[in-house]
Amino acid sequence: MRITALAGGVGGARFVRGLRHHLDATPGLGEAEVTVVANTGDDITLFGLRVSPDVDTLLYTLGGGVEEQQGWGRAEETHRVQAELAAYGALPQWFTLGDRDLGTHIIRSQWLGQGLTPSQVTARLAGRWGLPERRITLLPMTDDPVETHVVVADGEREAAIHFQEWWVRHGASLPAHRFVVAGLDRAAPAPGVLEAVRDADVVLLPPSNPVVSVGIVLGVPGVREALRETAAPVVGVSPLISGRPVRGHADACLRAIGVPESAAGVAGLYEDLLDAWLVDAADADTTLPRARVAVHDEPLLMSDVAAAGRIAAHALRLAEG
Amino acid sequence: MRITALAGGVGGARFVRGLRHHLDATPGLGEAEVTVVANTGDDITLFGLRVSPDVDTLLYTLGGGVEEQQGWGRAEETHRVQAELAAYGALPQWFTLGDRDLGTHIIRSQWLGQGLTPSQVTARLAGRWGLPERRITLLPMTDDPVETHVVVADGEREAAIHFQEWWVRHGASLPAHRFVVAGLDRAAPAPGVLEAVRDADVVLLPPSNPVVSVGIVLGVPGVREALRETAAPVVGVSPLISGRPVRGHADACLRAIGVPESAAGVAGLYEDLLDAWLVDAADADTTLPRARVAVHDEPLLMSDVAAAGRIAAHALRLAEG
Repeated sequence: MRITALAGGVGGARFVRGLRHHLDATPGLGEAEVTVVANTGDDITLFGLRVSPDVDTLLYTLGGGVEEQQGWGRAEETHRVQAELAAYGALPQWFTLGDRDLGTHIIRSQWLGQGLTPSQVTARLAGRWGLPERRITLLPMTDDPVETHVVVADGEREAAIHFQEWWVRHGASLPAHRFVVAGLDRAAPAPGVLEAVRDADVVLLPPSNPVVSVGIVLGVPGVREALRETAAPVVGVSPLISGRPVRGHADACLRAIGVPESAAGVAGLYEDLLDAWLVDAADADTTLPRARVAVHDEPLLMSDVAAAGRIAAHALRLAEG
Repeated sequence: MRITALAGGVGGARFVRGLRHHLDATPGLGEAEVTVVANTGDDITLFGLRVSPDVDTLLYTLGGGVEEQQGWGRAEETHRVQAELAAYGALPQWFTLGDRDLGTHIIRSQWLGQGLTPSQVTARLAGRWGLPERRITLLPMTDDPVETHVVVADGEREAAIHFQEWWVRHGASLPAHRFVVAGLDRAAPAPGVLEAVRDADVVLLPPSNPVVSVGIVLGVPGVREALRETAAPVVGVSPLISGRPVRGHADACLRAIGVPESAAGVAGLYEDLLDAWLVDAADADTTLPRARVAVHDEPLLMSDVAAAGRIAAHALRLAEG
């Protein structure tokens, strides 16, 4: 079985980890191959180093190195380099760069500087984290530079700030007028991305942010069409419960693009490609014109690996019938 | 009073720190301005980051952040980033990169990437370390790329390896056939370097490595001529005692260029510009055709700041008469 998931950071990573846990624990499914297509629209260059937050969160979570409570960054992290950068007056300081995490950014930047593509770099990083042995292939959505910016009010005028500044520095509290995704319309899917969608037996949309994570991946020219055209069933998991995101700021993102903050609202963004949609019992009244809706039999929360595994298992059952 | 010193790493840094200590402790000398012209020939790019070992040792030593026993690197250092780089299989691992130290390399690389010159970067770094307040101006010898390579035997043939690989990885134990200093003949003195020599009241040659530190600085076109022509007395301190370097591998470097491993041998390298030469009592029999020789009244060891200060004070007295 070949399973392909489009993923952002924490939610996507926890979902895929649960999926892999479920597959490995289920007779006959251990050989299934999982391909993750990661959002790279929130990549950012800090202190001259290229940071790819969603890819890193996927690497650390799937490779067993994540800070579990936080959901991103490295376990047992320290921040001695960043303290030095601050002492030198280097900005910005609102983005946390742990020492262990910096090892990833430094080696990524070196490899990119040597001419490797983001795909090649990601494959090397994934090797260190043991993803191939876990039958997980991690692909960036594109090798082209894409950066999500957020248009916000700046007095009487508008200003565009990097997504990370809006998300991390401002906690998505500045009302977003719209998102401008630099480079997205010219981006080519990274090698293997379209094939992973076309040749999949199941395509999953984890409970990642529908606007700035999954939405960006779907915005890479060709990807959305591949999801529409694939013979594989496309099953999604709602990132909202009773209109509120389990974590992150999906509500603020939906508001910015004028989409109802609800499980149905999110599903509407996937209307042209979705076959089934898994929601929390609180959203049991969700009806969709084109996709089946299923209600999970416990809270739709990835509170631990096993719970995430049960959500993934439910999504796979929906794909079957 | 304006004092200019040409310096390498540990020896140069400890000497200048002692000099500053002496000046500040001596009535009427506290206002003296010290300019240090630092060797940048042993700079190296590691993991895409630009490392300038002698400049960093000067910054940390003069700024109070050095690991005192070791003589280089940062106090209370950790190596968590380097452990990550190793986990990613990144090479080389023979060069120690501490976490705090990496803060310097990252910000230097960022600033260089933004188009700042090494001089401008060094001035910014020196600002953080309080050098201007201490009346110390730190200048790189040049803003042009210069890299010292060491030609060694490679089976029947010869191979050139980076100076740091020879010095750090091999502990200078591979016999050096010769040094090849890439870029040195085309390098221009950094802004202020020639002026610092020409306008000085005293020029000091600390007990730095005469071949790969002071020798490289003197090799920047125009610098040697400036030392010859300056009206200021030029006073040097021997880096050898009884033919052996106090630290480092000056003996191996002298051997490579066919110069006697002695206080007189080193002074011979400076013959055209030296007015006085300070040696240890063990080398009291040193005679030089053109320069006065003085014997220090205690071991010529910079065992602490005060001892280094007494050596510097002796050098200043030699400059006077």
